[in-house]
Amino acid sequence: MSTPGFTFTVTARDGNARTATYITPHGAVETPAFMPVGTLGTVKALTSEEVASTGARVVLGNTYHLALRPGEDTVRALGGLHRFARWTGPMLTDSGGFQVFSLAARRTVDDDGVTFRSHIDGAPRRLTPEESVRIQAVLGSDIAMAFDECPPGDADRATIERAMRRTSAWARRCLEAPRGASQALFGIVQGGIHEDLRRAHLEDLGGLDWDGLALGGLSVGEGVEDMHRVLRAIGPELPEERPRYLMGVGAPRDLLVGALCGIDLFDCVLPTRNARNGQALTWRGRVNIKQSRHRRDDAPLDPRCDGACCTTGYSRGYLRHLFVSKEILASRVLSLHNLHFLGALLAATRRAIAEGLAERFVEETLQGWREGDEVGPAVPMTRPERWRAEK
Amino acid sequence: MSTPGFTFTVTARDGNARTATYITPHGAVETPAFMPVGTLGTVKALTSEEVASTGARVVLGNTYHLALRPGEDTVRALGGLHRFARWTGPMLTDSGGFQVFSLAARRTVDDDGVTFRSHIDGAPRRLTPEESVRIQAVLGSDIAMAFDECPPGDADRATIERAMRRTSAWARRCLEAPRGASQALFGIVQGGIHEDLRRAHLEDLGGLDWDGLALGGLSVGEGVEDMHRVLRAIGPELPEERPRYLMGVGAPRDLLVGALCGIDLFDCVLPTRNARNGQALTWRGRVNIKQSRHRRDDAPLDPRCDGACCTTGYSRGYLRHLFVSKEILASRVLSLHNLHFLGALLAATRRAIAEGLAERFVEETLQGWREGDEVGPAVPMTRPERWRAEK
Repeated sequence: MSTPGFTFTVTARDGNARTATYITPHGAVETPAFMPVGTLGTVKALTSEEVASTGARVVLGNTYHLALRPGEDTVRALGGLHRFARWTGPMLTDSGGFQVFSLAARRTVDDDGVTFRSHIDGAPRRLTPEESVRIQAVLGSDIAMAFDECPPGDADRATIERAMRRTSAWARRCLEAPRGASQALFGIVQGGIHEDLRRAHLEDLGGLDWDGLALGGLSVGEGVEDMHRVLRAIGPELPEERPRYLMGVGAPRDLLVGALCGIDLFDCVLPTRNARNGQALTWRGRVNIKQSRHRRDDAPLDPRCDGACCTTGYSRGYLRHLFVSKEILASRVLSLHNLHFLGALLAATRRAIAEGLAERFVEETLQGWREGDEVGPAVPMTRPERWRAEK
Repeated sequence: MSTPGFTFTVTARDGNARTATYITPHGAVETPAFMPVGTLGTVKALTSEEVASTGARVVLGNTYHLALRPGEDTVRALGGLHRFARWTGPMLTDSGGFQVFSLAARRTVDDDGVTFRSHIDGAPRRLTPEESVRIQAVLGSDIAMAFDECPPGDADRATIERAMRRTSAWARRCLEAPRGASQALFGIVQGGIHEDLRRAHLEDLGGLDWDGLALGGLSVGEGVEDMHRVLRAIGPELPEERPRYLMGVGAPRDLLVGALCGIDLFDCVLPTRNARNGQALTWRGRVNIKQSRHRRDDAPLDPRCDGACCTTGYSRGYLRHLFVSKEILASRVLSLHNLHFLGALLAATRRAIAEGLAERFVEETLQGWREGDEVGPAVPMTRPERWRAEK
């Protein structure tokens, strides 16, 4: 059932939430965990040492992007994805499906696969389940993903059902395709925001020989309430004994809701992309650093944060100046901060689950945020540990 | 003569070259030294911790840029330039003269000062010797520079002579203007590539109450042979007992020639700007990382370099990929490398001067470079210490 080198052990349960230790050939990860995205072999703006410092244990690579540039053969010639990207921990590659459907120009889908043109130079290329698994094997990730068709969030029911049928057929071909000897393969459940379709697809795929199961096709344009409804309905029904991965989700609130629904793994470009757009994640909500209110504010981004950005003298005023001056250092510091925040958020979530306080932790944390709002000048505030003392 | 808090002590001489210890209120610097440029309060792409790791002790700020954005009053409100930019060591600010003449739109020079429009938003502003010193005092640098007129490298003799006369008059006004209690002030010698004009200007300014003297108006478009000729003629004639600063020069060869001519301090954007353009400085010459020859090269940039870039697994192939993919990490790693290289180059220069081997070190180092060429795939090569063993 499980690929050699991988074990998944649930260590605590609290309602539908759980903590687990997932051991891979490149090391262990405590879940629930957020996995930063290193699209082209680098988590944008950061070194691998910095990424590791945020508590991240698994980094993603994008098969579509790496296959187009520098090409999987170049990655192999340079020692494989771990050596290439200087990441010694576990790596996960997606299948390329999502990017083919969202980025490629002039794509044509048939039941065998997808023909498309590169978004970089227009060169033609074809991706099939077998080709996706082959590329992922060449890249050498620890966890490969099945090649799926991911319809947009506003797709009609018939389109979603057709994508499910293709994804189901492709899933079986992915499982048959040769992959790395110590490379796990996760299946992807589609079905949009329709609980009955999600259940049907899960029933079809759940019994196959996957190392883990993912929910795809969420956070793709549907409303957040719909996403949470699907998570609450389907999350707890995903197989118990294998990792559950919610793809493309990284907003702090969605991570907390996902963890309560029993999700183990998350990935998203949100923390690093938002950072490059001047948006910081904090224990009080989002901070838009370019606002003029920060111009002469000598306080750190978040006095509750113990990351380098908030404890080594980067003032909001200086960060604002760096951002409006388009200095690279702004992207660096905010990216590091946002990943550190998500790392701390999920570490606190794991502690809360272990202590049977998951619901309360999520509730109090959400109350502390005024998402969409901006926080005012930094003020003294309760420590994240406060709610634990009140147990 | 000297501003309180500063001492300059020559520690070794070798021909016209010398080593010295320059003590400032924010710490000591061993010279000859290269000073990275932090135009807007950040050495582009790097943290202050990284800059310090390259051996740099003094960082520059640009008065023109900082006065326009975020404004000197904002820097003061955020604790002054050191606190703002998180640099605990000495800082030097230029006078704004060079930028006013090279960047500002629609500038009008008169004998009192310069009226110009900001290159950012076209807002009108005026800079005079007194205003330049006032802004530098507000910024709070350790070393302020006199406000000078810097003519372009192709200016005719009459233009240069007029600029010298203005610079001389402005120099005296800068010395009279109130500045920080522990803020040194350096004068600037102009005169283009004309040795007689340089000597005349030095004679006019050299006896004034400066803490140090700089050569301005070099590396501004004149030929490199002309620059070296002026350096050889004028460098050794600069006052012995005070620091000598060659402004805007950062090419490795020019640093070595400058050191042989008795220069103590250098600054330039070259190492960081070249880095962002994919050009690395190495002990074998310049490496243009975007060349396709590096595509599958697993070797480090420079096996003789002991910096993080060359000792922690960044392959040329990976760096090329980062660069062509426009990843921020490329600018980061190459900037750090180039500053590390210049730091190591000047540390080796100081050792050579102390051992009486300055000429030989420079000759052998220049022979090892094929500047303008590219180095081939990395090969084993002699250590930088080899020439020392042959003493």
